[in-house]
Amino acid sequence: MAQATIGDSEFDRDSALTLRAPGVHDVRLPEGWSIGGAVNGGYLLALLGRGLGAHLPHPDPFTVTAHYLSVTRPGPAAIRTETVRTGRALSTGQASLVQTAADGSETERIRVLATYGDLGALSDDVRTTAKPPAMPPYEQCLGKEHNDASHPLAEIAARLDIRLDPATAGWAVGRPGGRGEMRAWFGLADGRPLDPLALLLAVDALPPTTFELGMTGWVPTVELTAHIRCRPAPGPVRIAVTTRNLAGGYLEEDAEVWDSEDRLVAQSRQLAVAPRH
Amino acid sequence: MAQATIGDSEFDRDSALTLRAPGVHDVRLPEGWSIGGAVNGGYLLALLGRGLGAHLPHPDPFTVTAHYLSVTRPGPAAIRTETVRTGRALSTGQASLVQTAADGSETERIRVLATYGDLGALSDDVRTTAKPPAMPPYEQCLGKEHNDASHPLAEIAARLDIRLDPATAGWAVGRPGGRGEMRAWFGLADGRPLDPLALLLAVDALPPTTFELGMTGWVPTVELTAHIRCRPAPGPVRIAVTTRNLAGGYLEEDAEVWDSEDRLVAQSRQLAVAPRH
Repeated sequence: MAQATIGDSEFDRDSALTLRAPGVHDVRLPEGWSIGGAVNGGYLLALLGRGLGAHLPHPDPFTVTAHYLSVTRPGPAAIRTETVRTGRALSTGQASLVQTAADGSETERIRVLATYGDLGALSDDVRTTAKPPAMPPYEQCLGKEHNDASHPLAEIAARLDIRLDPATAGWAVGRPGGRGEMRAWFGLADGRPLDPLALLLAVDALPPTTFELGMTGWVPTVELTAHIRCRPAPGPVRIAVTTRNLAGGYLEEDAEVWDSEDRLVAQSRQLAVAPRH
Repeated sequence: MAQATIGDSEFDRDSALTLRAPGVHDVRLPEGWSIGGAVNGGYLLALLGRGLGAHLPHPDPFTVTAHYLSVTRPGPAAIRTETVRTGRALSTGQASLVQTAADGSETERIRVLATYGDLGALSDDVRTTAKPPAMPPYEQCLGKEHNDASHPLAEIAARLDIRLDPATAGWAVGRPGGRGEMRAWFGLADGRPLDPLALLLAVDALPPTTFELGMTGWVPTVELTAHIRCRPAPGPVRIAVTTRNLAGGYLEEDAEVWDSEDRLVAQSRQLAVAPRH
């Protein structure tokens, strides 16, 4: 397979938007980005991020918050975008993803509030004290070829190149590690380079930390906020997700995304509903 | 001073809303919750949280995101609230704070997107692995009486009872510790018990971590997201704020709020503009 490029890749073709009217884009959500019939939240975040990037005067998502209102199904959808404020360095916008039922009734799936800027205009000043996650090199992590039949791969898995840190992959062989951690290398299967939109996909692409806590159920996201801090350097990124507060039937998932030059390119946190078992 | 109560306290009087029309509340923002002429972001978050709580069918903020669009000044303001979705366990709403200039033009100050639920309806199940911050007891932390004249107290300081961990208070005596950390005990000066609205105030009430990094300038918040996970037990809470990623002219501030029963009652993260010096 030839190396895909930004603009000519599966991800770009499958998240292409068609402008219907000012502030309204149509999109067809393919089956390929779903898990058990529900379209993946990270892919949808990237899709809404693309819609806002087309609407606002600044190109890059700096901070994006999505509230997941109802389950999105493959098929036609519309994205509505609205400018909240435009400024010199930053602009703020709002977006909705809606789907229309056979009877013509419309249901909102996701509401987004986001502030955009220009990552290319930022200073090179870095005083970051965070350290990249300790995890084995890409070659020593576990890709799709290690999956056994007890965990059938979701549709989206074919589109991603996720290589789990063996230390957080015990759940896949029936021996969850007991810690609320999930770590992996992440890339796109067709080799498309990562950019800020792909980072929005990345922050919700790993198996939930609850798998490593021995819980097998679905973990619906209530809200996810991602900060994109830097354009990633070439190559796969490392993602480390941590859950420290599982209480009252909810949990947080905190994700850090590190690029090949050891820069912390994205941080995200989501509030999700804990599985019952 | 008699012990204030929820509903009869300075905080409640100063964040009281007057319903003008469905979805529109009027409010007068007092001078007393500002810092250098700008109304404090945490107080405003609580105010918008109160407006959404009055509008939505569920009482408690579970996850609240605010984008700070322009500086809010003391004086009259309006809060507009809108229902995005209502469900059995959760409902989602949106709110705006606007101020009107002398010439009649209206400026939006803050846009909020939030999901509400009922903290009282949550299970008691706790599997939290996070630990409370290591900090000295309340009596050994530094309150207003330790402030020297080189850092005049902001108007809001009289309303809060903030006692800084001496380990993160070096900045106040010209010896910043060099780490992106700020820790304090937090309560309201009139003794009003803390509730979810007061936690929204708490997550943006401490001095910025940049003070301990030796930077003295203003740190405007771009976006702040707070998760309220539990009603706090009586007594002051401990707040620990950490910055790990100061890069490209922006930084994150991550806050944890712990109650007197060692429960992690709130988590927040904000993206802010780094000071130039």
